[in-house]
Amino acid sequence: MTDKLTEAERAEQIAPLLAAGWAMVDGRDAIHKTFTFRNFVEAFGFMTKAALWAEKWNHHPEWSNVYKTVEVTLTTHDADGLSALDAKLGAKLNALAGE
Amino acid sequence: MTDKLTEAERAEQIAPLLAAGWAMVDGRDAIHKTFTFRNFVEAFGFMTKAALWAEKWNHHPEWSNVYKTVEVTLTTHDADGLSALDAKLGAKLNALAGE
Repeated sequence: MTDKLTEAERAEQIAPLLAAGWAMVDGRDAIHKTFTFRNFVEAFGFMTKAALWAEKWNHHPEWSNVYKTVEVTLTTHDADGLSALDAKLGAKLNALAGE
Repeated sequence: MTDKLTEAERAEQIAPLLAAGWAMVDGRDAIHKTFTFRNFVEAFGFMTKAALWAEKWNHHPEWSNVYKTVEVTLTTHDADGLSALDAKLGAKLNALAGE
């Protein structure tokens, strides 16, 4: 799960995320997305749900929060780039945000 | 609570935080602190406790988390700088982190 993705795997696992609000990060093999909610309760509620999955999968986001906005960056430090775990967590975050 | 602090109030309310791990942010009337925990569960546990107080007081931090590290910036947008709410939340965050 933590090997860096091949080109074929990216086409299969990362491309759908890039079509669903995620974008490649400049200068890093990582993906980023800004999630916007109605208020802090909803934003932090999303983070709480995401935190449980992140801990369960032992794969944690780099993220920040200002009131109703949550910025998330996903990459796999052990793989020095995107792995299947990032694809899995990215899809889960979209689902948790109701997308 | 949301008026910008006077110099006298800063000496009373902000100085103790600057002596307890907080620092002024360059170019902003804001304070910043890096909290480091043993792991993600402890870091996010701290954020969860902090989030409940932030929502109760309707005063929310700008913060980011990477695994066991939580970076927090406090300021009061309505006051265009530090207010008593920042002093109160800063002291609460120190207490929640066990400091």
